[in-house]
Amino acid sequence: MPIEFNPIGRIHSPFSGLQGMPIQPTGALGVRGTVELYGEYREGLKDLEGFSHIILLYHFHLSRGFSLIVVPFLDSVERGVFATRAPKRPNPIGLSIVRLERIEAAVLHICNVDILDGTPLLDIKPYVPDFDAQEAVRAGWLEKAGRSVSNRKSDDRFK
Amino acid sequence: MPIEFNPIGRIHSPFSGLQGMPIQPTGALGVRGTVELYGEYREGLKDLEGFSHIILLYHFHLSRGFSLIVVPFLDSVERGVFATRAPKRPNPIGLSIVRLERIEAAVLHICNVDILDGTPLLDIKPYVPDFDAQEAVRAGWLEKAGRSVSNRKSDDRFK
Repeated sequence: MPIEFNPIGRIHSPFSGLQGMPIQPTGALGVRGTVELYGEYREGLKDLEGFSHIILLYHFHLSRGFSLIVVPFLDSVERGVFATRAPKRPNPIGLSIVRLERIEAAVLHICNVDILDGTPLLDIKPYVPDFDAQEAVRAGWLEKAGRSVSNRKSDDRFK
Repeated sequence: MPIEFNPIGRIHSPFSGLQGMPIQPTGALGVRGTVELYGEYREGLKDLEGFSHIILLYHFHLSRGFSLIVVPFLDSVERGVFATRAPKRPNPIGLSIVRLERIEAAVLHICNVDILDGTPLLDIKPYVPDFDAQEAVRAGWLEKAGRSVSNRKSDDRFK
Protein backbone atom coordinates (compact mmCIF):
# COMPACT_ATOMS: atom_id res chain seq x y z
CA MET A 1 0.00 0.00 0.00
CA PRO A 2 1.59 3.30 -1.05
CA ILE A 3 2.34 5.99 1.52
CA GLU A 4 0.96 9.37 0.55
CA PHE A 5 2.71 12.65 1.26
CA ASN A 6 1.61 16.15 0.39
CA PRO A 7 4.00 19.00 -0.41
CA ILE A 8 4.14 21.55 2.42
CA GLY A 9 5.72 24.26 0.27
CA ARG A 10 8.02 24.95 -2.66
CA ILE A 11 11.73 25.64 -2.95
CA HIS A 12 12.86 28.53 -5.14
CA SER A 13 16.34 28.83 -6.61
CA PRO A 14 18.16 30.33 -9.60
CA PHE A 15 18.11 26.90 -11.31
CA SER A 16 15.23 26.52 -13.72
CA GLY A 17 16.69 23.49 -15.48
CA LEU A 18 18.87 20.51 -14.63
CA GLN A 19 21.60 21.48 -17.07
CA GLY A 20 24.41 23.27 -15.22
CA MET A 21 22.85 22.99 -11.76
CA PRO A 22 25.36 22.46 -8.94
CA ILE A 23 25.64 19.03 -7.38
CA GLN A 24 25.21 19.09 -3.62
CA PRO A 25 25.21 22.22 -1.43
CA THR A 26 29.02 22.13 -1.31
CA GLY A 27 28.95 22.85 -5.05
CA ALA A 28 26.49 25.70 -4.49
CA LEU A 29 28.27 27.73 -1.82
CA GLY A 30 26.83 31.23 -1.73
CA VAL A 31 23.86 30.39 -3.98
CA ARG A 32 20.74 31.91 -2.45
CA GLY A 33 17.19 30.69 -2.63
CA THR A 34 13.99 30.59 -0.62
CA VAL A 35 11.68 28.04 0.86
CA GLU A 36 8.06 29.10 0.59
CA LEU A 37 6.21 27.19 3.26
CA TYR A 38 2.45 27.05 2.69
CA GLY A 39 0.79 29.39 5.18
CA GLU A 40 -1.14 26.68 7.01
CA TYR A 41 2.16 25.22 8.29
CA ARG A 42 3.72 28.49 9.40
CA GLU A 43 3.24 27.89 13.12
CA GLY A 44 5.60 24.91 12.85
CA LEU A 45 8.53 27.28 12.15
CA LYS A 46 8.63 28.51 15.75
CA ASP A 47 12.19 28.29 17.18
CA LEU A 48 13.71 27.30 13.82
CA GLU A 49 15.58 30.58 13.48
CA GLY A 50 17.98 29.49 16.23
CA PHE A 51 19.45 26.94 13.84
CA SER A 52 22.11 28.00 11.34
CA HIS A 53 21.58 24.94 9.15
CA ILE A 54 18.48 22.97 8.21
CA ILE A 55 17.82 19.69 6.44
CA LEU A 56 15.40 19.93 3.54
CA LEU A 57 13.64 16.83 2.28
CA TYR A 58 11.97 17.28 -1.08
CA HIS A 59 10.49 15.48 -4.05
CA PHE A 60 12.73 15.00 -7.10
CA HIS A 61 9.65 15.89 -9.11
CA LEU A 62 11.29 15.69 -12.55
CA SER A 63 12.60 12.18 -11.96
CA ARG A 64 10.62 9.59 -13.92
CA GLY A 65 11.00 5.96 -12.92
CA PHE A 66 14.18 4.73 -11.31
CA SER A 67 17.41 2.87 -12.04
CA LEU A 68 19.14 0.56 -9.57
CA ILE A 69 22.45 1.14 -11.34
CA VAL A 70 23.44 4.70 -12.28
CA VAL A 71 26.49 6.60 -13.48
CA PRO A 72 26.51 9.49 -10.99
CA PHE A 73 27.49 13.06 -11.91
CA LEU A 74 30.72 12.71 -9.93
CA ASP A 75 31.91 9.54 -11.62
CA SER A 76 32.20 7.67 -14.89
CA VAL A 77 31.61 4.27 -13.31
CA GLU A 78 28.30 2.49 -12.71
CA ARG A 79 27.26 2.54 -9.05
CA GLY A 80 24.36 1.11 -7.09
CA VAL A 81 21.79 3.90 -6.73
CA PHE A 82 21.77 3.60 -2.91
CA ALA A 83 25.53 4.31 -2.93
CA THR A 84 24.82 7.61 -4.72
CA ARG A 85 22.69 10.72 -4.24
CA ALA A 86 21.29 10.49 -7.78
CA PRO A 87 17.61 11.45 -8.20
CA LYS A 88 16.40 8.36 -10.08
CA ARG A 89 15.71 6.42 -6.89
CA PRO A 90 12.82 4.04 -6.11
CA ASN A 91 11.44 6.78 -3.84
CA PRO A 92 12.72 10.03 -5.35
CA ILE A 93 13.31 11.93 -2.11
CA GLY A 94 16.09 14.54 -2.14
CA LEU A 95 18.04 15.68 0.93
CA SER A 96 20.08 18.88 1.18
CA ILE A 97 21.60 20.60 4.16
CA VAL A 98 21.46 24.34 3.60
CA ARG A 99 22.31 27.42 5.62
CA LEU A 100 19.31 29.25 7.06
CA GLU A 101 19.84 33.00 6.82
CA ARG A 102 16.53 34.35 8.08
CA ILE A 103 12.80 33.71 8.21
CA GLU A 104 10.20 36.26 7.08
CA ALA A 105 6.66 35.11 7.76
CA ALA A 106 6.47 31.71 6.01
CA VAL A 107 9.49 32.34 3.75
CA LEU A 108 12.88 30.91 4.67
CA HIS A 109 15.89 32.60 3.09
CA ILE A 110 18.52 29.95 2.50
CA CYS A 111 22.06 29.73 1.14
CA ASN A 112 24.08 26.95 -0.57
CA VAL A 113 21.09 25.82 -2.60
CA ASP A 114 21.58 22.93 -5.05
CA ILE A 115 17.88 22.43 -5.70
CA LEU A 116 15.80 23.02 -8.81
CA ASP A 117 13.41 25.99 -8.80
CA GLY A 118 9.85 24.92 -8.03
CA THR A 119 10.78 21.72 -6.18
CA PRO A 120 8.01 20.46 -3.85
CA LEU A 121 9.07 20.53 -0.19
CA LEU A 122 8.30 17.51 1.99
CA ASP A 123 9.90 18.33 5.33
CA ILE A 124 12.21 20.69 7.21
CA LYS A 125 14.35 19.38 10.07
CA PRO A 126 16.89 21.21 12.21
CA TYR A 127 20.49 20.23 11.52
CA VAL A 128 21.99 19.11 14.85
CA PRO A 129 25.72 18.24 14.87
CA ASP A 130 25.22 15.93 17.85
CA PHE A 131 22.82 13.85 15.74
CA ASP A 132 23.99 14.45 12.20
CA ALA A 133 27.77 14.95 12.14
CA GLN A 134 29.67 11.68 12.18
CA GLU A 135 33.36 11.15 12.77
CA ALA A 136 35.79 8.51 11.52
CA VAL A 137 33.78 8.04 8.38
CA ARG A 138 34.62 6.02 5.28
CA ALA A 139 32.90 7.52 2.26
CA GLY A 140 33.50 4.78 -0.31
CA TRP A 141 33.83 5.93 -3.92
CA LEU A 142 32.83 9.44 -2.83
CA GLU A 143 35.86 9.76 -0.56
CA LYS A 144 37.78 11.54 -3.29
CA ALA A 145 35.03 12.39 -5.76
CA GLY A 146 33.08 14.28 -3.10
CA ARG A 147 35.78 16.89 -2.91
CA SER A 148 35.60 17.70 -6.62
CA VAL A 149 31.93 18.61 -6.27
CA SER A 150 32.50 22.36 -6.41
CA ASN A 151 33.46 22.33 -10.07
CA ARG A 152 31.05 19.65 -11.29
CA LYS A 153 27.61 20.48 -12.61
CA SER A 154 24.45 18.55 -13.26
CA ASP A 155 23.29 17.56 -16.73
CA ASP A 156 20.03 15.98 -17.86
CA ARG A 157 21.03 12.33 -17.40
CA PHE A 158 18.53 11.77 -14.62
CA LYS A 159 15.56 13.43 -16.27
CA MET B 1 -2.07 16.01 -5.57
CA PRO B 2 -0.40 13.62 -3.13
CA ILE B 3 2.99 12.08 -3.88
CA GLU B 4 3.03 8.31 -3.50
CA PHE B 5 5.97 6.37 -2.16
CA ASN B 6 6.29 2.63 -1.64
CA PRO B 7 8.38 1.04 1.11
CA ILE B 8 11.53 -0.58 -0.28
CA GLY B 9 12.17 -2.65 2.84
CA ARG B 10 11.78 -2.84 6.61
CA ILE B 11 14.00 -1.85 9.49
CA HIS B 12 14.44 -4.32 12.35
CA SER B 13 15.56 -3.29 15.81
CA PRO B 14 15.21 -4.38 19.44
CA PHE B 15 12.50 -1.73 19.95
CA SER B 16 9.03 -3.15 19.59
CA GLY B 17 7.31 -0.17 21.25
CA LEU B 18 7.83 3.56 21.56
CA GLN B 19 8.17 3.45 25.34
CA GLY B 20 11.84 3.46 26.32
CA MET B 21 13.19 3.69 22.77
CA PRO B 22 16.34 5.79 22.43
CA ILE B 23 16.07 9.23 20.88
CA GLN B 24 18.42 9.70 17.95
CA PRO B 25 21.32 7.40 17.02
CA THR B 26 23.54 9.18 19.56
CA GLY B 27 21.23 7.79 22.24
CA ALA B 28 21.48 4.32 20.70
CA LEU B 29 25.23 3.85 20.47
CA GLY B 30 26.02 0.16 20.08
CA VAL B 31 22.39 -0.85 19.46
CA ARG B 32 22.32 -3.26 16.52
CA GLY B 33 19.61 -3.81 13.97
CA THR B 34 19.10 -4.74 10.36
CA VAL B 35 17.65 -3.24 7.23
CA GLU B 36 15.86 -5.83 5.15
CA LEU B 37 15.77 -4.45 1.63
CA TYR B 38 13.16 -6.11 -0.57
CA GLY B 39 14.97 -8.42 -3.03
CA GLU B 40 13.90 -6.52 -6.14
CA TYR B 41 16.04 -3.53 -5.04
CA ARG B 42 19.14 -5.52 -4.11
CA GLU B 43 21.16 -4.47 -7.18
CA GLY B 44 21.02 -0.88 -5.94
CA LEU B 45 23.27 -1.79 -2.96
CA LYS B 46 26.35 -2.15 -5.18
CA ASP B 47 29.28 -0.10 -3.77
CA LEU B 48 27.41 0.79 -0.58
CA GLU B 49 29.70 -1.33 1.58
CA GLY B 50 32.50 1.22 1.09
CA PHE B 51 30.57 3.66 3.30
CA SER B 52 30.86 3.41 7.07
CA HIS B 53 27.68 5.44 7.65
CA ILE B 54 24.39 5.62 5.81
CA ILE B 55 21.35 7.86 5.95
CA LEU B 56 18.06 6.03 6.37
CA LEU B 57 14.81 7.73 5.44
CA TYR B 58 11.75 5.95 6.74
CA HIS B 59 8.06 6.30 7.44
CA PHE B 60 7.02 7.12 11.02
CA HIS B 61 4.27 4.59 10.49
CA LEU B 62 2.77 4.82 13.97
CA SER B 63 2.37 8.58 13.79
CA ARG B 64 -1.27 9.61 13.30
CA GLY B 65 -1.96 13.15 12.15
CA PHE B 66 0.44 15.96 12.99
CA SER B 67 0.97 18.86 15.36
CA LEU B 68 2.64 22.11 14.38
CA ILE B 69 3.61 22.73 18.01
CA VAL B 70 5.10 19.88 20.03
CA VAL B 71 6.87 19.34 23.33
CA PRO B 72 9.87 17.29 22.16
CA PHE B 73 11.36 14.42 24.18
CA LEU B 74 14.43 16.54 24.93
CA ASP B 75 12.57 19.52 26.31
CA SER B 76 9.66 20.64 28.43
CA VAL B 77 8.92 23.67 26.27
CA GLU B 78 6.63 23.87 23.23
CA ARG B 79 8.56 24.08 19.96
CA GLY B 80 7.60 24.42 16.33
CA VAL B 81 7.60 20.91 14.85
CA PHE B 82 10.08 21.90 12.12
CA ALA B 83 12.55 22.94 14.84
CA THR B 84 12.37 19.38 16.23
CA ARG B 85 12.85 15.81 15.04
CA ALA B 86 9.49 14.73 16.50
CA PRO B 87 7.53 12.18 14.45
CA LYS B 88 4.16 13.98 14.34
CA ARG B 89 5.11 16.00 11.26
CA PRO B 90 2.92 16.94 8.28
CA ASN B 91 4.89 14.36 6.26
CA PRO B 92 6.03 11.80 8.83
CA ILE B 93 9.44 11.02 7.34
CA GLY B 94 12.18 9.97 9.76
CA LEU B 95 15.91 10.41 9.19
CA SER B 96 18.67 8.56 11.03
CA ILE B 97 22.36 8.30 10.32
CA VAL B 98 23.55 4.85 11.34
CA ARG B 99 26.78 2.91 11.10
CA LEU B 100 26.85 0.26 8.38
CA GLU B 101 28.64 -2.84 9.63
CA ARG B 102 28.21 -5.25 6.73
CA ILE B 103 25.87 -6.30 3.97
CA GLU B 104 24.73 -9.89 3.45
CA ALA B 105 22.64 -10.33 0.32
CA ALA B 106 19.83 -7.78 0.76
CA VAL B 107 20.28 -7.42 4.55
CA LEU B 108 22.23 -4.48 5.96
CA HIS B 109 23.63 -4.95 9.45
CA ILE B 110 23.57 -1.58 11.17
CA CYS B 111 24.57 -0.08 14.50
CA ASN B 112 23.34 2.92 16.54
CA VAL B 113 19.72 2.18 15.70
CA ASP B 114 17.05 4.46 17.19
CA ILE B 115 14.25 3.14 15.01
CA LEU B 116 11.17 1.11 15.88
CA ASP B 117 11.12 -2.54 14.79
CA GLY B 118 9.11 -3.02 11.61
CA THR B 119 9.50 0.53 10.33
CA PRO B 120 8.95 0.86 6.55
CA LEU B 121 12.12 1.98 4.75
CA LEU B 122 11.84 4.70 2.09
CA ASP B 123 15.42 5.35 1.03
CA ILE B 124 19.09 4.65 1.76
CA LYS B 125 21.70 7.29 0.97
CA PRO B 126 25.45 7.23 1.56
CA TYR B 127 26.62 9.57 4.33
CA VAL B 128 29.27 11.84 2.83
CA PRO B 129 31.04 14.24 5.21
CA ASP B 130 31.79 16.63 2.33
CA PHE B 131 28.03 16.99 1.77
CA ASP B 132 26.55 16.29 5.17
CA ALA B 133 28.90 17.51 7.90
CA GLN B 134 28.57 21.23 8.56
CA GLU B 135 30.87 23.44 10.56
CA ALA B 136 30.24 26.59 12.58
CA VAL B 137 26.74 25.49 13.32
CA ARG B 138 24.19 27.04 15.69
CA ALA B 139 21.79 24.38 16.89
CA GLY B 140 19.15 26.54 18.58
CA TRP B 141 17.37 25.00 21.57
CA LEU B 142 19.09 21.69 20.78
CA GLU B 143 22.54 23.18 21.36
CA LYS B 144 22.54 21.94 24.94
CA ALA B 145 19.63 19.52 24.91
CA GLY B 146 21.19 17.51 22.05
CA ARG B 147 24.02 16.43 24.30
CA SER B 148 21.72 14.96 26.93
CA VAL B 149 20.25 12.61 24.35
CA SER B 150 22.14 9.55 25.55
CA ASN B 151 20.17 9.28 28.76
CA ARG B 152 16.76 10.32 27.44
CA LYS B 153 14.23 7.83 26.16
CA SER B 154 11.13 8.02 24.05
CA ASP B 155 7.62 7.71 25.47
CA ASP B 156 4.28 7.45 23.74
CA ARG B 157 3.55 11.17 23.42
CA PHE B 158 3.75 11.07 19.61
CA LYS B 159 1.66 8.02 19.04
